[in-house]
Amino acid sequence: MVKVVKFGGSSLASAEQFAKVGKIIRADETRRYVVPSAPGKRHSKDTKVTDMLYKCYSYAEADEDFRVLLMKIKDRYDSIINGLRIKVSLDNEFKTISDNFKAKAGEDYAASRGEYLNGIVMAAYLGYKFIDAAEVIFFDEDGNLNMDKTIKVLGERLSKEEKAVIPGFYGSLPDGTVKTFSRGGSDITGSIVARAVHAGLYENWTDVSGCLVADPRIIDNPVPIEVITYRELRELSYMGASVLHEDAIFPVRKAGIPINIKNTNAPEEPGTLIVESTVQKPDYTITGIAGKKGFVAVNIDKDMMNGEVGFCRKVLQAFEEANISIEHMPSGIDTMTVFVHQDEFKEKEQQIIGSIRRNLDPDVIDMEGDLALIAVVGRGMKATRGTAGRIFSALAHARINVKMIDQGSSELNIIIGVSNSDFEEAIKAIYDIFVETKL
Amino acid sequence: MVKVVKFGGSSLASAEQFAKVGKIIRADETRRYVVPSAPGKRHSKDTKVTDMLYKCYSYAEADEDFRVLLMKIKDRYDSIINGLRIKVSLDNEFKTISDNFKAKAGEDYAASRGEYLNGIVMAAYLGYKFIDAAEVIFFDEDGNLNMDKTIKVLGERLSKEEKAVIPGFYGSLPDGTVKTFSRGGSDITGSIVARAVHAGLYENWTDVSGCLVADPRIIDNPVPIEVITYRELRELSYMGASVLHEDAIFPVRKAGIPINIKNTNAPEEPGTLIVESTVQKPDYTITGIAGKKGFVAVNIDKDMMNGEVGFCRKVLQAFEEANISIEHMPSGIDTMTVFVHQDEFKEKEQQIIGSIRRNLDPDVIDMEGDLALIAVVGRGMKATRGTAGRIFSALAHARINVKMIDQGSSELNIIIGVSNSDFEEAIKAIYDIFVETKL
Repeated sequence: MVKVVKFGGSSLASAEQFAKVGKIIRADETRRYVVPSAPGKRHSKDTKVTDMLYKCYSYAEADEDFRVLLMKIKDRYDSIINGLRIKVSLDNEFKTISDNFKAKAGEDYAASRGEYLNGIVMAAYLGYKFIDAAEVIFFDEDGNLNMDKTIKVLGERLSKEEKAVIPGFYGSLPDGTVKTFSRGGSDITGSIVARAVHAGLYENWTDVSGCLVADPRIIDNPVPIEVITYRELRELSYMGASVLHEDAIFPVRKAGIPINIKNTNAPEEPGTLIVESTVQKPDYTITGIAGKKGFVAVNIDKDMMNGEVGFCRKVLQAFEEANISIEHMPSGIDTMTVFVHQDEFKEKEQQIIGSIRRNLDPDVIDMEGDLALIAVVGRGMKATRGTAGRIFSALAHARINVKMIDQGSSELNIIIGVSNSDFEEAIKAIYDIFVETKL
Repeated sequence: MVKVVKFGGSSLASAEQFAKVGKIIRADETRRYVVPSAPGKRHSKDTKVTDMLYKCYSYAEADEDFRVLLMKIKDRYDSIINGLRIKVSLDNEFKTISDNFKAKAGEDYAASRGEYLNGIVMAAYLGYKFIDAAEVIFFDEDGNLNMDKTIKVLGERLSKEEKAVIPGFYGSLPDGTVKTFSRGGSDITGSIVARAVHAGLYENWTDVSGCLVADPRIIDNPVPIEVITYRELRELSYMGASVLHEDAIFPVRKAGIPINIKNTNAPEEPGTLIVESTVQKPDYTITGIAGKKGFVAVNIDKDMMNGEVGFCRKVLQAFEEANISIEHMPSGIDTMTVFVHQDEFKEKEQQIIGSIRRNLDPDVIDMEGDLALIAVVGRGMKATRGTAGRIFSALAHARINVKMIDQGSSELNIIIGVSNSDFEEAIKAIYDIFVETKL
């Protein structure tokens, strides 16, 4: 079995962190393809190399002196190289970068150098072959990933390399210029490499012990999730849980390769395994809780609405014509509610309301803003009677007013609407009832 | 204040019942306009006069001998007339009816004679003026009620009559032929009369002590509802609770006239007052529970569905093009479920599924049939935290698997999906928790 291992910025922020990474890679012969991020923060007040590069390039673009900042960036790498006691010089690399900055090579080029340089250091440290991602990851003219070409070229190239380092985050456009993925895109590179080499596992090494049941900014030390399905992860990510770059799931999922989220600082911990499906029961009835603030509920009442074929469709059309995507749409009898993002909606509010008023002649349209949506997600909910009862009892006990409930037949998630101001308390109440008390 | 009083068929099934009605009307001088139904069943194995008329006319249409059955109908009226010891003969009326049956005057004409004759008897008994509904209730050529003309003519006519009886259930088409409302349509006549005379109250006299919190076929002796809003009534009616003809609400609601559902056999009981809105708190958190069996849930999953503007709209379009109305549409993340009536859906199943498959390329479409929907309705729910928790705890305790939950921001109702086979138990569990235990 081949493993592809991707390391995040905090795992590679210093020589000390590099050493941990080296130990992890050397501990398993099958960790043959390594995707590094750029060096991240060494402490909370530190600056990520990628951010330094953006800033440095902005000086270059403004024809200001960027050399001092570029030397600071070089110092970051040199301190890693010196700390690891390896023999590699980045002098020529930085000369080229400086020239290209002067020639205004572009922001994407600038940002990508963080991974590029880290890849060179990593390859030297491990004794692996360095492969520039610009030679193996391809975007088309519209800036979309050209998956077919990438998999073909990358697969052929790596079939000739026993062990290699491929920097994350970037690739090249048809004219050869560098283009990056969106921020956090090294996750995508790792996923593509895993797919290209038909890996048995894609290990994604971070500074947390896997995906957490709830947001650690709301819950103190939430428990990690041992096994999660792609579907569950997508649902939690969609509702605001951040672990992996969302686009990183598609390539490996398509190829049936599981992802293991691991902690570089605690490699003995199992982390979170992300799989297509599993018979393994989750530790708790719920797999995770996530949520987002900032929604508006548009309520539409009309007598006999339920008998009117096409009513809902016409309402949705009004939103669609204003290019507003619908988040949820619970309905009662002669009443329907449409949840939309407040920031998107507010500019088009009158256009949409006017259109509904003109075309559908409702009895009442009213709106409630400052609402939050919470998703309680879990494959275990289907097999457990009373999940809904426990959630709503817990919320009632915490004196939280439930504004909306939406649970489809899939029974994999329940969506709950509350006031923005009740958001954190609601998540705490749900976490407590399922994890702390574990009834 | 003027009251319009409508009496149902069981309130007028016999001389004994007529006497109760007479006592009720004479007890209140303001009960000036009376709308009778045709005589109903005197006991559970009896036949309603309207059903006898339909059968009798079917003989006439088939050129068979209908006279024996027509004489049986006359006997029903004569026994009422004799029982009341009033002097009125229906001989000429029955001669005319017999002639018109022979001339094939139409099924609507035939059915309407039940109310027509009962109106004559009632007017004679009370000493009120009899007004043939064909002269004051008008349909247009398409068979729809001509409300404007009806209100105008009826209002003018009744302004000249201190006290009058107007038979329910029918009116006339522009060419003068009789047309009936749908079955139970005397409720509509009463509502129209109430609006035409600007009544202060529309009393609808039945054989039950008002609307009940739940279906008496499922719950033994359910408690009556004291005050209900039009909106709540509409929601319960829509979900299967039967008290008033649905179209009877519109005319009085438009005019702001409350309806009082009363029991002819227990006139001292307050019955149910139906109002536009009220500050009166309901006795229980919920106002009523109703439900229907026979739904199908069509589940559609597609990765990243939530980001696709117009996805839901396109799904609904597929149903609309097949002329299938949507009952509910709960949604999760990347999943939506559409609830439709099983009997309507089954013929068009493949057309709709095919259309969704072709136009939306979903990952999964599956269906679950034999589902029931239950509506828990109540204006009191908005002010009471924890209603949802109580409902779902009760259902869990009763070992009922909840397939779907839909609660919009209106907070006036929660819709719950369960298996057809759990339907009755689910209603019992909800009734128990709110009414029997009244926590």
